[in-house]
Amino acid sequence: MQPYQFTAAEAARLIRDRRLSCEELVRSCLDRIAAREPVVKAWLFLDPDLAIRRARELDKRAVQDGPRGPLHGLPFGVKDVIDTLDMPTTQNSPIYEAARIGRDAACVGVVRHSGALILGKTDTVEFASGGRKALTRNPFNPMHTPGGSSSGSGAAVGDFMVPLAFGTQTAGSHIRPASFNNIYALKPSWSLVSREGVRMAALSLDTVGWFGRSVEDLRLVAEAFRLPGLAQPAASLKGLRVGLCRSPVWNRIEPAGAAALETAARRLEAAGAIVEPLELPAHFAGLTAAREVIGRHEGSAAFLPEYLAAHHLLAADLRQRVELRATYDSAGLLAAYALADRCRPEFDALFGPRLDVVLTPAAPGEAPEGLHTTGDWIFNGIWTLLHVPCLAIPAIRGPRGLPVGIQLVGPRLSDARLLAIAAACAPAIDSEPGWARETLCR
Amino acid sequence: MQPYQFTAAEAARLIRDRRLSCEELVRSCLDRIAAREPVVKAWLFLDPDLAIRRARELDKRAVQDGPRGPLHGLPFGVKDVIDTLDMPTTQNSPIYEAARIGRDAACVGVVRHSGALILGKTDTVEFASGGRKALTRNPFNPMHTPGGSSSGSGAAVGDFMVPLAFGTQTAGSHIRPASFNNIYALKPSWSLVSREGVRMAALSLDTVGWFGRSVEDLRLVAEAFRLPGLAQPAASLKGLRVGLCRSPVWNRIEPAGAAALETAARRLEAAGAIVEPLELPAHFAGLTAAREVIGRHEGSAAFLPEYLAAHHLLAADLRQRVELRATYDSAGLLAAYALADRCRPEFDALFGPRLDVVLTPAAPGEAPEGLHTTGDWIFNGIWTLLHVPCLAIPAIRGPRGLPVGIQLVGPRLSDARLLAIAAACAPAIDSEPGWARETLCR
Repeated sequence: MQPYQFTAAEAARLIRDRRLSCEELVRSCLDRIAAREPVVKAWLFLDPDLAIRRARELDKRAVQDGPRGPLHGLPFGVKDVIDTLDMPTTQNSPIYEAARIGRDAACVGVVRHSGALILGKTDTVEFASGGRKALTRNPFNPMHTPGGSSSGSGAAVGDFMVPLAFGTQTAGSHIRPASFNNIYALKPSWSLVSREGVRMAALSLDTVGWFGRSVEDLRLVAEAFRLPGLAQPAASLKGLRVGLCRSPVWNRIEPAGAAALETAARRLEAAGAIVEPLELPAHFAGLTAAREVIGRHEGSAAFLPEYLAAHHLLAADLRQRVELRATYDSAGLLAAYALADRCRPEFDALFGPRLDVVLTPAAPGEAPEGLHTTGDWIFNGIWTLLHVPCLAIPAIRGPRGLPVGIQLVGPRLSDARLLAIAAACAPAIDSEPGWARETLCR
Repeated sequence: MQPYQFTAAEAARLIRDRRLSCEELVRSCLDRIAAREPVVKAWLFLDPDLAIRRARELDKRAVQDGPRGPLHGLPFGVKDVIDTLDMPTTQNSPIYEAARIGRDAACVGVVRHSGALILGKTDTVEFASGGRKALTRNPFNPMHTPGGSSSGSGAAVGDFMVPLAFGTQTAGSHIRPASFNNIYALKPSWSLVSREGVRMAALSLDTVGWFGRSVEDLRLVAEAFRLPGLAQPAASLKGLRVGLCRSPVWNRIEPAGAAALETAARRLEAAGAIVEPLELPAHFAGLTAAREVIGRHEGSAAFLPEYLAAHHLLAADLRQRVELRATYDSAGLLAAYALADRCRPEFDALFGPRLDVVLTPAAPGEAPEGLHTTGDWIFNGIWTLLHVPCLAIPAIRGPRGLPVGIQLVGPRLSDARLLAIAAACAPAIDSEPGWARETLCR
């Protein structure tokens, strides 16, 4: 097996034990990228020389002082709406083609300090919001989308180009690409991870998350962020209470999405969990529309600078968002805030002795064909608005041979507990962990 | 009268009518700064040559194409926690001493596009949060604080160095310095103005605002931001229903603060308003503590990068905020969110036929003596947490000869209406508008 095929956690162990150098790992990733990038097109910026230089520095440092932190030497992709000190940040917008921001985003600073090697910037939907799409293709079938807006990060991790990457989610930009690319993702609780230096699209919604190829990978990054409660004991599947939530938008499910959810439920039951249907209160059905209202109105502030300064270079749908300021619906926005404020503690309160975790679709089904779409965020929007942690796990292959995942959801600020539960659930749900490697790395 | 003495609105009119050039105005401001800066110390960065060059460009542009927008040629100060393309952004932290960020913050981009001339960066409490204080002194008495954390912006506008400036508020960093420096300030509703490129301290709280020397000044900037509803009709004092809110922290008021509030109420009544006491529901008393819980917990994410990368350069109180992650009180934080979520619509619902605007203290009293303190935010915290628009108006001189203001508060997203009401109230409340000019510009 080549080093690029290791999960982050596997590579971290080997590096710690001095059985793998950072330089070997990054060279292997760069080789993989060289071979696959012409098809997958995940990257907007890569500097192989810089990466190798950094890897050598990290190797030297490990000899002198030990590893810098839990991510020592692990290559990390960064969605190009996130600022990096040493690389351009274009947001996939012609307005920022040449932008170099002289400071790392908070999240980049945190993983860099923990030893991560920032490998490059990944392609994204313009501003992670609208306008032009990423050029990225689905590693399992280049005629299909890898999802979006975190297209490049999802595909790069899915295609074994890089073990870890950052994405963001304002509607379903993080968990959906995880499902389409057969990978793991954590969208943390809103407010637990700083968004400083990350493109804003909607103040109440934008969330930074990360991708990996195992729950352990996600946990390594969580350690770098010192997410509260990580010291807690492991969870067990035996007697775990799982709420099977078809969600208020079940009418939008496709057969492959339904099969993923039901297969995951069956596998969890077979492994000793207690799976029971969970029906959300009726007014939760309004959350999807509320998220849209909030996204559009908050977006009218977010894109005003570009609207004014570079009107013709801003996509029509983002211009329309700004133009909403002329007919701003304050009452509608306040009603949307109020519904979210009501539902958040109600959802949290479902958890306790009778419910440990919610199991719900990560996407409607397989990745759609064509690059004119990035798929539908409909199964993600309400969770983003609820500010709850969401964790994507690969589940099945659909009828077209493409992966379909599910997501586990917990109450707000229970991210560490969700990681523990996911660690218990993943071996059951992701029952063929070697499949993607065998398919893609021949 | 020298050009530097004009309000923003006066100068804008003269520039539009070609009776004042941008260059004349900025040279006058620079002269004022040269004369006063040794005492006031409002600025962390100034580039007079750049400013004059920009003024000439704006003058040329006006001849060719007319004014760029409502702020054409108006010098604008920027609190140094806000990114600027062409100037350093130090956050008054040794960590960022040399930081040059290759992009304007959203708010800077908006006013620049509207013709504002970004004059320089103003001193601030470190990260607008804690650690070292600004060196800035109160223009009315250099032995006293100008308030904080927007110390330099408040003092620069108060001292007639610049007609407009940006500040930020997470607890009381914007409205309090307005009161201490005898100026006007708008802290807009949360989410109406983008915070992209502004240092984050607490995701639910941080708000960008602006200072001016009249309500019309504040409105000019609001036009640049296209705040919703600005086209509405003027308000009248006759029959205006004013709720006199001593607030749940009235026990912290000083005699000068009480006098300011009562004087403002009396003057409004004398001018035809109907002023009646407004008692907030009892549970609003918990908002001050809730704001602190939220600020500390969200701050534990905000300062993690500096904690990791530059531990010894981060102030002890900000280090402590990060260390809170080890004993993170999720239940306490969720309870604080829940109280805010409950109070926000309750506060909004007070408004209607029986209440147009709330009149409440902007600060406990005069600016305290000494630079070891920036004064107390106690009268600002609950309004920040409620996400409501707040507008500061100068009111009286206290026993030590220092100014004391009040603030008007409206329901969420009613910023345009609050500006209209303030335009009606200000001539009554700020009954000696020439006083500061006569005192400071002799």
